[in-house]
Amino acid sequence: MGDTVKYLLDESEMPTQWYNIIPDLPQPPPPPLHPGTHEPIGPDDLAPLFPMALIMQEVSTESYIDIPDEVLDIYRLWRPSPLYRARRLEKALDTPARIYYKYEGVSPAGSHKPNTAVPQAYYNAQEGVTNLTTETGAGQWGSALAFACGLFGIDCEVWQVAASFEQKPYRKSMMETWGATVHSSPSPLTEAGRAILAEDPDSPGSLGIAISEAVEVAAQNDETRYALGSVLNHVLLHQTIIGEEALLQMQMAGDTPDVIVGCTGGGSNFAGLSFPFLREKLAGRINPTIRAVEPSACPSLTKGVYAYDSGDTAGMTPLMKMHTLGHDFVPDPIHAGGLRYHGMAPLLSHIYELGLIEAIAIGQTECFTEALQFARTEGIIPAPEPTHAIAAAVREALACKESGEEKVILTAVCGHGHFDLASYDKFLSGDLVDFEYPEEKVAAALEHLPTME
Amino acid sequence: MGDTVKYLLDESEMPTQWYNIIPDLPQPPPPPLHPGTHEPIGPDDLAPLFPMALIMQEVSTESYIDIPDEVLDIYRLWRPSPLYRARRLEKALDTPARIYYKYEGVSPAGSHKPNTAVPQAYYNAQEGVTNLTTETGAGQWGSALAFACGLFGIDCEVWQVAASFEQKPYRKSMMETWGATVHSSPSPLTEAGRAILAEDPDSPGSLGIAISEAVEVAAQNDETRYALGSVLNHVLLHQTIIGEEALLQMQMAGDTPDVIVGCTGGGSNFAGLSFPFLREKLAGRINPTIRAVEPSACPSLTKGVYAYDSGDTAGMTPLMKMHTLGHDFVPDPIHAGGLRYHGMAPLLSHIYELGLIEAIAIGQTECFTEALQFARTEGIIPAPEPTHAIAAAVREALACKESGEEKVILTAVCGHGHFDLASYDKFLSGDLVDFEYPEEKVAAALEHLPTME
Repeated sequence: MGDTVKYLLDESEMPTQWYNIIPDLPQPPPPPLHPGTHEPIGPDDLAPLFPMALIMQEVSTESYIDIPDEVLDIYRLWRPSPLYRARRLEKALDTPARIYYKYEGVSPAGSHKPNTAVPQAYYNAQEGVTNLTTETGAGQWGSALAFACGLFGIDCEVWQVAASFEQKPYRKSMMETWGATVHSSPSPLTEAGRAILAEDPDSPGSLGIAISEAVEVAAQNDETRYALGSVLNHVLLHQTIIGEEALLQMQMAGDTPDVIVGCTGGGSNFAGLSFPFLREKLAGRINPTIRAVEPSACPSLTKGVYAYDSGDTAGMTPLMKMHTLGHDFVPDPIHAGGLRYHGMAPLLSHIYELGLIEAIAIGQTECFTEALQFARTEGIIPAPEPTHAIAAAVREALACKESGEEKVILTAVCGHGHFDLASYDKFLSGDLVDFEYPEEKVAAALEHLPTME
Repeated sequence: MGDTVKYLLDESEMPTQWYNIIPDLPQPPPPPLHPGTHEPIGPDDLAPLFPMALIMQEVSTESYIDIPDEVLDIYRLWRPSPLYRARRLEKALDTPARIYYKYEGVSPAGSHKPNTAVPQAYYNAQEGVTNLTTETGAGQWGSALAFACGLFGIDCEVWQVAASFEQKPYRKSMMETWGATVHSSPSPLTEAGRAILAEDPDSPGSLGIAISEAVEVAAQNDETRYALGSVLNHVLLHQTIIGEEALLQMQMAGDTPDVIVGCTGGGSNFAGLSFPFLREKLAGRINPTIRAVEPSACPSLTKGVYAYDSGDTAGMTPLMKMHTLGHDFVPDPIHAGGLRYHGMAPLLSHIYELGLIEAIAIGQTECFTEALQFARTEGIIPAPEPTHAIAAAVREALACKESGEEKVILTAVCGHGHFDLASYDKFLSGDLVDFEYPEEKVAAALEHLPTME
């Protein structure tokens, strides 16, 4: 009895290994290429940017990688995270479907990002790195890295996309409270930033530009490395703790998901939730539909091309084969800042090409409509990013209401919306609009893809 | 091994009764008086404002009151809440003391306030009430009641102190997301508000004024009742779930507190944490020092008089015997808005007069200094209110460093600071100042105490 149904693992049941899906795939993903030579890059090429332990995880062919004790110790500050059954939402929808959501907003930074920020800070500290640089859009990743660096005594320098720096001053304060230094990007501190500012002194910035700045500073300083909050294999790897926990919690619930939906920006939250379930699916033990949900305004999987492209605007990163809208595409200012990235994780892109997952795009007004209902039934105010996952779960649940099917739907609410209430305010005032898919802007950006001979 | 030490109760171990300390006290607290007749008030006098179930709890002589199943069900969304040992903070302080903190920031509204908002909304709904009014200062209480009313389908109308309404627009958005209506106080909607506005159209408002407005609207509408977030016996009662859980968790830890410190505004968080331990102390089973911590700028326990005073500015509430700085005292704009109340809970005031608890006052710069260290070691960014508790715990731990004593210190971090980062920003910029105790302003306010013949 009761409408609150929460599945909690004991600390002793917390997974102690991350899952690497690559060895279980029918084909390995295409390699990253050097941006100058277009030859596959090796570990040494990445050494100026990342500590060797993370580079080795990036190219690992092991199925499981032990989580260091020091990382597990910090994970325990908030992990294992809860899995809820959304009974109050189900009632409001009058659906026979059973909706479960994994909630990652319980971390100190309020999202799933600390799952990878903590090991990234740890491995850097282990190898004597004293300074880390990174970029942040909505601020979730910068906050997570600031938190993690604080715990390991690493100086953290964050380039925050100018538009977000202006609109979300409290994210900056949060990063500074944890000891980080925050710059508005584009900044006059880097060549990449100065080049953009010379063209447009009022540039609102973009994730691609901010990455260029953070990478430039890391590449030029021996004791400084760079940290990325999504896209790369090792980041997706660290996030699999979400899905590994969810697998155990679904067993506690005695239910098997028929549909798994998750929001995708760079892809780390979606991969983290779904890869352990995809492993079970590839092994023939379960057979869920697995569906990525992206914003209509930045639909890299559903509308982008699958091609080698740069991860940043200035072309400093390795070229990665991925679904991309073009590295100089600047998405419309939707409220899910964490989903405003021109590309999709190469590993997820590859898995999508293999036909192992589906993808859909949803506009933000539908997302906020469902988020409001979620907040008023489940009590949690979701960040704009997971409102996409919630909207997709609701679509599925309403389809079940039509068909009478009792499907089991699993999703993840990857963060809370405490720093995003201006977006809710805009929605409640009726001022939030959907942006059309910007066909011409994407076509123009795709003309600038690197030419592969 | 490991620095993260977290004590979690299983849901099945969650307390199912609130603890009423009154029968265990050597003397009962003085009764509230009618503001007109100065005669002790009876349940009927309160009926225009509160549902009978809460009035009965207000005057109950039972030691334990069952928590309704419907309330337990909602508590389970975030309860039982964690108890942490602050090992990383202890290391940073280099203290032999062991510091434990109960963390209430895990609730959807981000503080301990939902512990009473949920039962208050429940009992009102049970008795057919369709509308609730309340006031909010910092926004913690208004958010909690908005959340609770959303779950029970009650319309919630909140008068938010004007200064906070301007400075913290996101608290308003949060309340609206949960479905509440929010007014800036003083408002032109009530006689009390209009009277203040006539004198000062730019009045920044105060909790006392906002209470007057909310009470006025409730008193004038049959289907509307009023809800208070602190001060009253039934509110303190509901918060005892904090201390009951903490007692069990300290048993798990195998430690007994020597010192319990908590921040006090109206007193509900402090009472919630400490009353179950005080029961054990009165029974001779443990012997902790129990210490309330208030802000230097609003020190009702340490500097106020113990006298009958009104709970609001307009003099509409019953008169309560409490430590007060005078009902028309408007505290300086310190950042811990939740501690800016002229009075102290009558029950806590009585217990203080009985000599069962101590009290100290701390200035906000010391509090924020310790909060920053706490955030950088324990990972959690505390709300300004519990920074007072943290600062007091640190004082005690540093005294142990001097003396070599291995004291066990217990405190509560009653909420997170996600909506208070402007305060951290001010502190980090060096712009946060301490306010002296406003001796003359208090003396003037105390001249307006009700005359008791």
